[in-house]
Amino acid sequence: MTIAAPTVETFLESTRDRRLESYFELLRIPSISTLSEHAPDMVRAAEWIAAEMRRIGLEHVEVSPAGGHPVVYGDWLHAPDAPTILVYCHYDVQPVDPIDLWETAPFDPFVKDGRVVGRGSADDKGQLHMHLKAAEAVLATRGKLPLNLRYIFEGEEESTSANLPGWLEANRERLAADAVVISDTGFFEGNVPAITTSLRGLLYTQIDVVGSPVDLHSGGFGGAVQNPANALAKIIAALKADDGTVLVPGFYDDVEPASKQERFELSCLPFDEEAFRAQTGVPALVAGEPGFSVLECMGVRPTLDVNGMWGGFTGEGSKTIIPAHAHAKVSCRLVPDQDGDKLFEAFRDYVAEVAPKGVEVSVQNLGTAKPLRMDPEHPVARAAARALEATFGQAPVFIRSGGSIPVASLFNSTLGLPVVMLGFTNPDDNAHAPNETMVLLNYETGLRTITQLWDDLGSMSPQAARLGGTTA
Amino acid sequence: MTIAAPTVETFLESTRDRRLESYFELLRIPSISTLSEHAPDMVRAAEWIAAEMRRIGLEHVEVSPAGGHPVVYGDWLHAPDAPTILVYCHYDVQPVDPIDLWETAPFDPFVKDGRVVGRGSADDKGQLHMHLKAAEAVLATRGKLPLNLRYIFEGEEESTSANLPGWLEANRERLAADAVVISDTGFFEGNVPAITTSLRGLLYTQIDVVGSPVDLHSGGFGGAVQNPANALAKIIAALKADDGTVLVPGFYDDVEPASKQERFELSCLPFDEEAFRAQTGVPALVAGEPGFSVLECMGVRPTLDVNGMWGGFTGEGSKTIIPAHAHAKVSCRLVPDQDGDKLFEAFRDYVAEVAPKGVEVSVQNLGTAKPLRMDPEHPVARAAARALEATFGQAPVFIRSGGSIPVASLFNSTLGLPVVMLGFTNPDDNAHAPNETMVLLNYETGLRTITQLWDDLGSMSPQAARLGGTTA
Repeated sequence: MTIAAPTVETFLESTRDRRLESYFELLRIPSISTLSEHAPDMVRAAEWIAAEMRRIGLEHVEVSPAGGHPVVYGDWLHAPDAPTILVYCHYDVQPVDPIDLWETAPFDPFVKDGRVVGRGSADDKGQLHMHLKAAEAVLATRGKLPLNLRYIFEGEEESTSANLPGWLEANRERLAADAVVISDTGFFEGNVPAITTSLRGLLYTQIDVVGSPVDLHSGGFGGAVQNPANALAKIIAALKADDGTVLVPGFYDDVEPASKQERFELSCLPFDEEAFRAQTGVPALVAGEPGFSVLECMGVRPTLDVNGMWGGFTGEGSKTIIPAHAHAKVSCRLVPDQDGDKLFEAFRDYVAEVAPKGVEVSVQNLGTAKPLRMDPEHPVARAAARALEATFGQAPVFIRSGGSIPVASLFNSTLGLPVVMLGFTNPDDNAHAPNETMVLLNYETGLRTITQLWDDLGSMSPQAARLGGTTA
Repeated sequence: MTIAAPTVETFLESTRDRRLESYFELLRIPSISTLSEHAPDMVRAAEWIAAEMRRIGLEHVEVSPAGGHPVVYGDWLHAPDAPTILVYCHYDVQPVDPIDLWETAPFDPFVKDGRVVGRGSADDKGQLHMHLKAAEAVLATRGKLPLNLRYIFEGEEESTSANLPGWLEANRERLAADAVVISDTGFFEGNVPAITTSLRGLLYTQIDVVGSPVDLHSGGFGGAVQNPANALAKIIAALKADDGTVLVPGFYDDVEPASKQERFELSCLPFDEEAFRAQTGVPALVAGEPGFSVLECMGVRPTLDVNGMWGGFTGEGSKTIIPAHAHAKVSCRLVPDQDGDKLFEAFRDYVAEVAPKGVEVSVQNLGTAKPLRMDPEHPVARAAARALEATFGQAPVFIRSGGSIPVASLFNSTLGLPVVMLGFTNPDDNAHAPNETMVLLNYETGLRTITQLWDDLGSMSPQAARLGGTTA
């Protein structure tokens, strides 16, 4: 195992303040991919990243049109006998509402209690920035990297990566690699280093219920017409039993049951339920399904959640109307081997079946992502574990993430590459929520983990790095 | 029965154009009570009405401060042996949004296809103006009225009449009367003359469901926490059975069943379900409860409707969160002898009982109104029926309105007076909606109905006019 040259550490130590300022610069660009008014900010963020990549010495840097927001590509390919790793992060961020719950402006980052606060600090600009700064430190001090790297920085991760499949397909030739390292996950509860070995898939839908063309007076028409909001509530209530079991027919058919061994390992994780509950602020944790622990429900079992719901009068006071229409965004987290597109059909048919009469009900598919399992014994995963232990002083735990990274399964299915999830965010990072944070120590130590990992992999042959696999 | 003196008719005929211009003048004042920027218009409208009342010979005319927008009071009390009737209308109007659906400016009235088009033409300035012009015609031609009249023209009916209870209480002394005639309702489907004999009451609530203090990532936390929006849907769904029956314990306990006779009469009303459905624009009418017709469900049965519902992400595209909180405004239309405040307790307890665990649920009472029945056999109601038949050439139908007019039960409970609802608007008047209209023939014939009614009542003794009653 090669140890990172002292000059890399010296460089990192001496550039700490500049690095933080550069991190802040990137965070200040409000690159919200789902809101069309931020399209210019998306381009601004992509150009900022491309400029930075060129500055530190990466090559073939390109803000590549992808159909929607651009992909930023760059590489360094001058280590002929070493493996080639494809690095993926994303530069788009979640919307900021509810804005009134932010303690400060979401795009005006600052450091508080050892954390960087701001939208994207953790998910995922912080981790993207760590990769840039890790490469900069090595190139600045050694003039070369120990292995070949290709960077793909996407701008649509938070809006279902609709255009990435096409882009990957079209760029297949220049994406040849031995493995993919994705940095878009985080540590386990208690900020314990972790390697994610599975991701849930996603099915994201919208249910639209329409009654009359305009709101009706609830006195004049109440009792004569179906109320779209009541009807929507009936539909949503019918999606799950009171014990949490999803009632969409066939929903669990393709769920691969967790093995006894896996369930045992999950039960051994240092999970403090009360600390976790306190972190969420809910009055009590509620396991999603009967017969499974909270951890199991978050990792190895699928879920169904309303993400948003609206209809009728939502102002102050009272307005006596029957809403003209009501809507809900409903999404499912999927586990291997559930298929989002297949489940969408079942979901749509079931909604139609349980829909009350007197209203028009339609269901949209707003996107799907495949669930993914990754082999913890893969050479790259093992090297990542070694790098984490060497830099954070603690061996990582292997966890199954509840989240979905659509692109992860794409790399596997489109490019046939094994995937390793190496993420550094603190579990209480408020990703997708107000007051998102990144623990600065995770950021600083994590970029040392990355240089360490590159050195470790650089000492392997491409063949050695390619062993093992990933199953979608 | 006294017949209106020919001179009244001659006067009405010869002043038709001037009357319409005066009606337009009143409509041109944008007296929207809920919007504070229209406060000066409210005063302008009140002053316009007061000036008109003084001009035609009414006495003790006063623009009386009521706490919010003023009440306009005036009387004529020189018929010592005749009954005294309190006339109620309101001069405030609904807001005009959605403004883009108006075919012309809402406060620039004109006549089209025999209808006056403009905000307030029907609800309720048109009817207020009919009362002024009826009094003018009689006073101008005879120098006196056949009975004693007190006018109360309110400026806050469209904004919950918050200050009227206090004003009535404070003015009790000068409001002595034998009965109240309220002109703020309308004709039955097909523009058939009608007398409303009941109004539904109201219970207006808000359900608040809170999980975490901030939205949670649906991947990271889905499966571990109760989702407030799913929980709210479960609660709302539990409020009514699939057949529409309200499941709040005791909800129907105090509902006075409609008699066979009443149900028979309702079934005889010339109600064209398909025309009514087409008017609402819903795909199909749905009767609120099993075993009752649509008309029954609108008039003699209580309802429960969601008026608005919101929580989580409601923007374009997808955001994968578990909402921190979710809310619904839920109201019930009540019928005799349901009591809103009593039902609120049952409602709140039931919501607590059906609420899923893992969230905090609270229920607010945003207001109640008592249901009101008016005796169709009351001497004033019978006189009104005779006047309608004599002037419109068609006996009125007696209908039970689905709406609530809080002030109607107020007159009954505060002043102890029987109430008769004598309204003239066409059922397709678009009250509260864009392109509000008043059929000019209803207006012109209706003011003759009023003079006819005054003559009829003037021939009775106060004792005779006071018989019968109104039950809150």
